[in-house]
Amino acid sequence: MNSEKLLHLFENREGEYVSGETISQELNVSRTAVWKHIRKLESLGFRFDASRKLGYKLVFKPDRLSEAELSDRLRTERFGRTLRLLDEVDSTQNVARKLAEDGAPEGTLVVAELQTQGKGRMGRSWISPYGKGIWMSMVLRPQVPIHFAPQLTLLTAVALCRSLMRVTGLTIGIKWPNDLQIEGKKISGILLESTAEDERLRYVIAGVGISANLEEDDYTPEVSDKATSLRIAAGKPFDRTQIIADFMLEWEQLFNVYQSGGFDAIIPLWEALSVSLHKPAVLLTPQGVIEGTPVGLDASGAIIVEKASGERAVVFSADMGEPST
Amino acid sequence: MNSEKLLHLFENREGEYVSGETISQELNVSRTAVWKHIRKLESLGFRFDASRKLGYKLVFKPDRLSEAELSDRLRTERFGRTLRLLDEVDSTQNVARKLAEDGAPEGTLVVAELQTQGKGRMGRSWISPYGKGIWMSMVLRPQVPIHFAPQLTLLTAVALCRSLMRVTGLTIGIKWPNDLQIEGKKISGILLESTAEDERLRYVIAGVGISANLEEDDYTPEVSDKATSLRIAAGKPFDRTQIIADFMLEWEQLFNVYQSGGFDAIIPLWEALSVSLHKPAVLLTPQGVIEGTPVGLDASGAIIVEKASGERAVVFSADMGEPST
Repeated sequence: MNSEKLLHLFENREGEYVSGETISQELNVSRTAVWKHIRKLESLGFRFDASRKLGYKLVFKPDRLSEAELSDRLRTERFGRTLRLLDEVDSTQNVARKLAEDGAPEGTLVVAELQTQGKGRMGRSWISPYGKGIWMSMVLRPQVPIHFAPQLTLLTAVALCRSLMRVTGLTIGIKWPNDLQIEGKKISGILLESTAEDERLRYVIAGVGISANLEEDDYTPEVSDKATSLRIAAGKPFDRTQIIADFMLEWEQLFNVYQSGGFDAIIPLWEALSVSLHKPAVLLTPQGVIEGTPVGLDASGAIIVEKASGERAVVFSADMGEPST
Repeated sequence: MNSEKLLHLFENREGEYVSGETISQELNVSRTAVWKHIRKLESLGFRFDASRKLGYKLVFKPDRLSEAELSDRLRTERFGRTLRLLDEVDSTQNVARKLAEDGAPEGTLVVAELQTQGKGRMGRSWISPYGKGIWMSMVLRPQVPIHFAPQLTLLTAVALCRSLMRVTGLTIGIKWPNDLQIEGKKISGILLESTAEDERLRYVIAGVGISANLEEDDYTPEVSDKATSLRIAAGKPFDRTQIIADFMLEWEQLFNVYQSGGFDAIIPLWEALSVSLHKPAVLLTPQGVIEGTPVGLDASGAIIVEKASGERAVVFSADMGEPST
């Protein structure tokens, strides 16, 4: 038995109590197994009323995405058109990478309700509770040399930021290179994993995590200083299907612009949304600390930093912070 | 049983015939299994004399690398110091990638006597018969952004070319970007597979195939127009252990120079060995055909091509050919 069958049983008896005995008989499993699956569903956000006499009643179902509904609302040609909607995965990146190795077409999208080992940048973990966020990975097969892979990260941040602002009405900014923030708190992370042979990109797995409908108590106090969700910021939950469908369309359109016209068209869009430009910053690079004011992106996607001396540095990779005052 | 045990049995009875009956008893396998393993060893280049009365005698052993001997002759600090010497693999790239994912240190080297699915550039296959070539892959963990991955391909070609010329005394040139040639015929191929998270390289698997001791009849007539071996070119076989040990040292030294001083130090070395500069060429790029004269590398490792108009193009990725006359 899996928890899915138990859930269907409750969904067919909406509002009713079902005795453990009945469940055990209908699904042909032990009472202990029934109890374990109830606990499992509770851990995913389902809530049950348990009565010694009457049995269990399903009283709350978390929001769940539907493959049919999402497919129906997509307005894209390729992005999301091959779709894997999964309940629980270790990491959508791993699932998408396997699909890519097996030849999945560009635009193949993996979305999961729950990640047990969500991946953030540099091996950091990522909070991804059931049914509240959008945890997804997409297969890209861009026809560009490996040099340009970082441009795709910036492009993805632009597409996500534009579509989220449109859907939510919130003001969202991009912290270099690719964190989305509302009033300094992170609401989304992007991680692109690239695989290349010599200078040719074989594929890119673009991982996007959106803290859509997470609530205050999903965050530890420590994390809530640095992270928030669309729901917390707006004071209301959002339709995750709409968020995904809108993002897919924006992303595909920008990707097409990029493939035909190059990165030049993306630079001003990124710069317009960035919250990292024109104010003093400290950049921790693998080669050492750079202090200065980021002034824009160069043609390759690196950030241009103007130092106090007037000298300009081009930074490919760094953690960016504010100078201590 | 594996073929290895059968081989040891013959090696302990050098020059003697051993009856199928004896082998079958000593190794506790059927006569049919013995016959199958003899055939397997023959396919790897071993030769047996078979007599109905006396049994089998091992009459020819192909050259085999020894882990102990190779380790002993290495003069490196890291390159090759973690060593996996395998008899038969699908592809050394696959073995090395798994090791890298499991955290293998930089310099981990995989060498195989035989590849059943040797990988060339762009999915092309690669002839890699038993015991005659050097088929290897190494784990690199360079501290450079993904932009610079193609520089490592050029660096590897320089290290291999310099070390092979020193060991063999032959004149060897580099065809852009990374084929090694003797008088226009390919003797070595290099394939670097990179894996990155955003702009950070996680690891690079550097695959190197060297047609060391292949003989005329290892090549089909079609291939022998375009490829040769060190043995054919020099008229004598070479010590593969020495080739590997010398390459490891040259490669490690160049890699150290690169890590501390950047690509600038590598450019003149590559240009000095290149056979692709200063003569007309046709480059088939993903963006179209470029005709012109390659004049050198730019700071990122791309090739600079001067067109008839005097205009210069910078090419990251292409197949290079000669103009038809």
